[in-house]
Amino acid sequence: MKARVHVMLKTGVLDPQGEAVRHALGSLGFEGVNGVRQGKVIELDLAEGTTEAQVTEMCEKLLANTVIESYSVEMS
Amino acid sequence: MKARVHVMLKTGVLDPQGEAVRHALGSLGFEGVNGVRQGKVIELDLAEGTTEAQVTEMCEKLLANTVIESYSVEMS
Repeated sequence: MKARVHVMLKTGVLDPQGEAVRHALGSLGFEGVNGVRQGKVIELDLAEGTTEAQVTEMCEKLLANTVIESYSVEMS
Repeated sequence: MKARVHVMLKTGVLDPQGEAVRHALGSLGFEGVNGVRQGKVIELDLAEGTTEAQVTEMCEKLLANTVIESYSVEMS
């Protein structure tokens, strides 16, 4: 089974990578880009029977820095 | 309007970050993690009327390195 975890900086936390992308898009002539936030996506290939609770624990312990990052888990 | 772009390394391209996460999860006692791939997610806040074709162009020109990365665009 597969799980996909999204890790994004929390709202209000400065995102220099996202800002850099926004500026670069402007320089390339793309108009109307009001904001960019960049995060991580982690795709896990898991043994059958792994629960969403276990993936959440992985996020809490390793995948996300919960002080500044939020995460969401999708199982499939 | 919002767009979300996922950028992942293509299948077959070595993903050292993903491998590091896999090892770290094993060290923390999580069993049954067969594989991990790490990619980027970019959330764009766009002016109304921006088309998916324009976002695809952003991916081709800046957001993804299409030699080694694949991308997908979701508009919302």
